[in-house]
Amino acid sequence: MRIQKASTDPLASWHEGPTKDSIHHFVTRVKTQGGADYLPPFERIAVFDNDGTLWSEKPYYFQLAFALDRVKVLSADHPEWREQQPFKAVLEDNIEEFLAGGMKAILDVLIATHADTTTNEFEAIVCDWITSRRHPKTGRLYTEMVYQPMLELLRYLHANDFRTYIVSGGGIEFMRAWVEEIYGIPPEQVIGSSIETKFEMRDRGPVLVRIPQIDFVDDNEGKPVGINKFIGRRPLLAFGNSDGDHQMLQWTEAGEGPRFMGLVHHTDAEREWAYDRDSLVGRLDKALDEARAKDWTVVDMRRDWRVVFPWENE
Amino acid sequence: MRIQKASTDPLASWHEGPTKDSIHHFVTRVKTQGGADYLPPFERIAVFDNDGTLWSEKPYYFQLAFALDRVKVLSADHPEWREQQPFKAVLEDNIEEFLAGGMKAILDVLIATHADTTTNEFEAIVCDWITSRRHPKTGRLYTEMVYQPMLELLRYLHANDFRTYIVSGGGIEFMRAWVEEIYGIPPEQVIGSSIETKFEMRDRGPVLVRIPQIDFVDDNEGKPVGINKFIGRRPLLAFGNSDGDHQMLQWTEAGEGPRFMGLVHHTDAEREWAYDRDSLVGRLDKALDEARAKDWTVVDMRRDWRVVFPWENE
Repeated sequence: MRIQKASTDPLASWHEGPTKDSIHHFVTRVKTQGGADYLPPFERIAVFDNDGTLWSEKPYYFQLAFALDRVKVLSADHPEWREQQPFKAVLEDNIEEFLAGGMKAILDVLIATHADTTTNEFEAIVCDWITSRRHPKTGRLYTEMVYQPMLELLRYLHANDFRTYIVSGGGIEFMRAWVEEIYGIPPEQVIGSSIETKFEMRDRGPVLVRIPQIDFVDDNEGKPVGINKFIGRRPLLAFGNSDGDHQMLQWTEAGEGPRFMGLVHHTDAEREWAYDRDSLVGRLDKALDEARAKDWTVVDMRRDWRVVFPWENE
Repeated sequence: MRIQKASTDPLASWHEGPTKDSIHHFVTRVKTQGGADYLPPFERIAVFDNDGTLWSEKPYYFQLAFALDRVKVLSADHPEWREQQPFKAVLEDNIEEFLAGGMKAILDVLIATHADTTTNEFEAIVCDWITSRRHPKTGRLYTEMVYQPMLELLRYLHANDFRTYIVSGGGIEFMRAWVEEIYGIPPEQVIGSSIETKFEMRDRGPVLVRIPQIDFVDDNEGKPVGINKFIGRRPLLAFGNSDGDHQMLQWTEAGEGPRFMGLVHHTDAEREWAYDRDSLVGRLDKALDEARAKDWTVVDMRRDWRVVFPWENE
């Protein structure tokens, strides 16, 4: 009996309890024809943050790991970086010094490593990196550092005619290179931060060139802006894990009818990481207070998840 | 026999001939399973310009008519406009003088009339206008000034599992207010020009406020940029009518495998308007040359369309 149940339960990696119940309850309300809260498939929009919500974000955002690796590759063409911060710190593997440079250091590195290629070239560079580089702590490919319970949640929503979008502070083109294969979320349902691109007619045809200038920051107040810009509808469900998702959750909640607001709370120092109010990466403070005050769903990773990463099932 | 044929022909308003054949031929290539050019539904992306491609754009863009009407409504709160160009000309119904102000006058009016509301308020304003105001020449609602053959083409593509997007220089939120009902194209498949929006927490909850600052111009080189930003895939089919669509057609053509590039050529002074190389609104010059050189499909409105507007069938 137990095996049968596990094999047919779409949320098999979630422990039974109020968190799992809240998901089932919400989906059932929305999909029950003739019910007071029924909504047709085209209204079933669900938005997910990525870093810390669908995959890990420690010791720092994986896209930053990509950027730091790119600094080393590109340094051959930039001898001046050996004496120029924040690149010097990166080339000397002095991550602490690099991070001491704060958001400016991070932005400098992101822009220097994400521009001056065509969109096609950039996609190939990301694909190459993401299929070969491994996480410093687990030794796993970064795409293995995704949360099994959240993969199941995505599939469960897809099976119930939800369209799932990623709404992430991460780079839109960094994510589009791999998320369809890993999450089953197609490129047109990925919203993220971006730099400007420019159409250019070359001898072999037109290209889009990525230029070193911020176009859009899809974080905090930017998330509802991005949702409105790209989707033009308000989501029914939003899932995040940090204060960067706070406004997206508020925007979702403010719609009429059934809404689901969820937070992944990183409480599992053993299987993943435990952090919230004091963390630089993925700080969860104000959104946690509001979630508790308003009875949003807060996933306690340690208690609610039978399994964290897919490989634990191996 | 004739009646039967018309009633089952998805492109009944298109005359038989090479233009109609080119559409049928392309769709058949893409959808024939086992064929060399078969592509699965998720790849079947089709992009359409709006002004002059799906609905008329004369005597000037309909969104500009909306903006000019808004100047009059808003002038009660702006007594200074009575002495200030370009508003003065608009308030005096001196369209010629207004248009003499060129793109700057148009932008000034667009920004003054499209900002300082929430996104919800703006949608209501557009809905109210589009369901009540009528075209100065035909006396029809603007939403009746759509091309019956293009409505049939959209339906034909939908029936063959294409996802159709609007990629227009027009305002994204102006279009989203009405295009789903008229074209069957949902808000998340509308790409257009935009002003910035800003998240704001008010007493009654969060709103997005439209602020008077250009965010994105989805025209000319901006169209491939917008396609890449919003869709992240290259279209298989692109339809436009002016040089503003040229780069979108080039970008579409540069993909591998079957592609369809189409232009609506306004050749029917009797039923619609006739204009191309010398028109300020909807100039078609360079794109027409390239279309002819490369054997793209050029719709001769007068010869290829049995019917132009839906009401001709009444």
